[in-house]
Amino acid sequence: MNARVTQRHTGDPLPSWVEGPVKDAVLDVVRGADDEDSPRFVPVSDRVAAFDNDGTLWAEKPEPVQLRFLLGKLQDAVRNDPALADVEPYLALATGDRRFFGAVADQDPDAVGALLHAIGQAWAGASAEEFDAEVRRYFESERHERFGCRFTDLVYAPMRELIDLMHAHGWRVFVCSGGGRDFMRVIAEQSWGLHRERVIGSAPDHAYRDGQVVRVAAMSEPLALGPGKPEHLYSRTGQLPVFACGNGDVDVEMLQSSTFALVIDHDDPEREYAYTDGATRVLDAARTRGWTTVSMREDWSRVFTWDR
Amino acid sequence: MNARVTQRHTGDPLPSWVEGPVKDAVLDVVRGADDEDSPRFVPVSDRVAAFDNDGTLWAEKPEPVQLRFLLGKLQDAVRNDPALADVEPYLALATGDRRFFGAVADQDPDAVGALLHAIGQAWAGASAEEFDAEVRRYFESERHERFGCRFTDLVYAPMRELIDLMHAHGWRVFVCSGGGRDFMRVIAEQSWGLHRERVIGSAPDHAYRDGQVVRVAAMSEPLALGPGKPEHLYSRTGQLPVFACGNGDVDVEMLQSSTFALVIDHDDPEREYAYTDGATRVLDAARTRGWTTVSMREDWSRVFTWDR
Repeated sequence: MNARVTQRHTGDPLPSWVEGPVKDAVLDVVRGADDEDSPRFVPVSDRVAAFDNDGTLWAEKPEPVQLRFLLGKLQDAVRNDPALADVEPYLALATGDRRFFGAVADQDPDAVGALLHAIGQAWAGASAEEFDAEVRRYFESERHERFGCRFTDLVYAPMRELIDLMHAHGWRVFVCSGGGRDFMRVIAEQSWGLHRERVIGSAPDHAYRDGQVVRVAAMSEPLALGPGKPEHLYSRTGQLPVFACGNGDVDVEMLQSSTFALVIDHDDPEREYAYTDGATRVLDAARTRGWTTVSMREDWSRVFTWDR
Repeated sequence: MNARVTQRHTGDPLPSWVEGPVKDAVLDVVRGADDEDSPRFVPVSDRVAAFDNDGTLWAEKPEPVQLRFLLGKLQDAVRNDPALADVEPYLALATGDRRFFGAVADQDPDAVGALLHAIGQAWAGASAEEFDAEVRRYFESERHERFGCRFTDLVYAPMRELIDLMHAHGWRVFVCSGGGRDFMRVIAEQSWGLHRERVIGSAPDHAYRDGQVVRVAAMSEPLALGPGKPEHLYSRTGQLPVFACGNGDVDVEMLQSSTFALVIDHDDPEREYAYTDGATRVLDAARTRGWTTVSMREDWSRVFTWDR
């Protein structure tokens, strides 16, 4: 794969990680898998690692890029059909009323259902190629509010190094995100050096019609959030992950299902963001269960490839 | 992967294939993918191949081993609860009435629904580990009626050589079978040299509960049959296959969705079986569309590893 940076066997395979116990723990797990005499040994067939995406592999503030993409699409829909503005979620978008999205964030079933229905409708009938092209155009045209870069340039340099190191040690790395599977697949190779089939996420159903794959409005599988993460991972890989990494409360079950859990703590307001919203449960679980926690401020010598 | 036989760069990579146009066509496609100047060139990221299982990777007569496994389980259920014998599919099993299974074979929705419901009930609440252990015991204990061997010894030697050759040329090989995904995953590594995540198939839902994955009775995703095959392949891999291989009418859509289609014709009653039931449409399509067709009798110098 072109985009993949092969690790050299000499030199530091994780140059963006600060020397210390967190880096040591990560190196032990990744490299220990090779050593049959190590308690960290993992048979090759079981070396499955799972990474959340938003806030784990790239920045998710001020809002995940995919949420931005989805809401833009719904705003287009209501512009094309003003009658939609009478119902949620279009009503909330048209009036700027934040209560509806607060209810979505709180996992209110009616609000989540209305949002998913609108998203399903937005692309119903689009071919896979059409959807991919729309996503590609979006990444080309949009820039991050604070950093001014493309959203694909918000991938964390230390995580890209970690993925490459895992590949060098025979791990199969999967992204497992609550975000849209097909949205992420468009940028998976360039961003993470991962083939499309390594991306697991939420997705509508697709139908094979007239020789092509077409999106339909229904969504039969659960969202890849909370218990949905280990469920999707089992469905796709036939096992629970040996290594898992996340940063949000929706990652707790995936982390708990793994042998080694790594949590990203966003405590770096200068280089990235400092926040614990949506992460209080996972940070508590990390303390209670002894999961390894990365302080972005302390444990990463650079966050983005352009730092320093 | 231990079970994988690495192809040597010297010598014949497909020793069980008879020299001729079929072998040449297969070698052209598999190796041509590497050659940027060839019309067969395929970028590494797109090198996805899909193989049906029953009748394509191993023998499916007198009945697919998994059907045998499922029916045995349903017979156990009716022995434990004789009241079940009043309803289908248990009634058909108890009385030997073949009409119900004829209706299943004809894809009658009521019959298929009743059978899937019974299968869902049979393992509802079983953990993934328990199910795997049951499948493993089955493969250990059961023998094929005609050949007297384990069912895992019914893998076609030429197909195993082809999978290994594809791996050597950077293809990612997936099994895409209407059969049970989790059943096949148990033997995927030993039989085909494939990690579990390379097996796509029909499956019930699973729930993550109390730290483990448990089978539930419902089945949200479609069966991986007919159009369900390209749909499952898109869902799992993010693309349609470049190379596809099958032998049954339920493979037509998957073959049609691929760039290169290979069809296995069972015309070898001495070494295997001769039949066209469930394959008339696919054999017609192969003729009409110019798909490459393997005559087991003419194109394979051995069928099973123990031949000759």
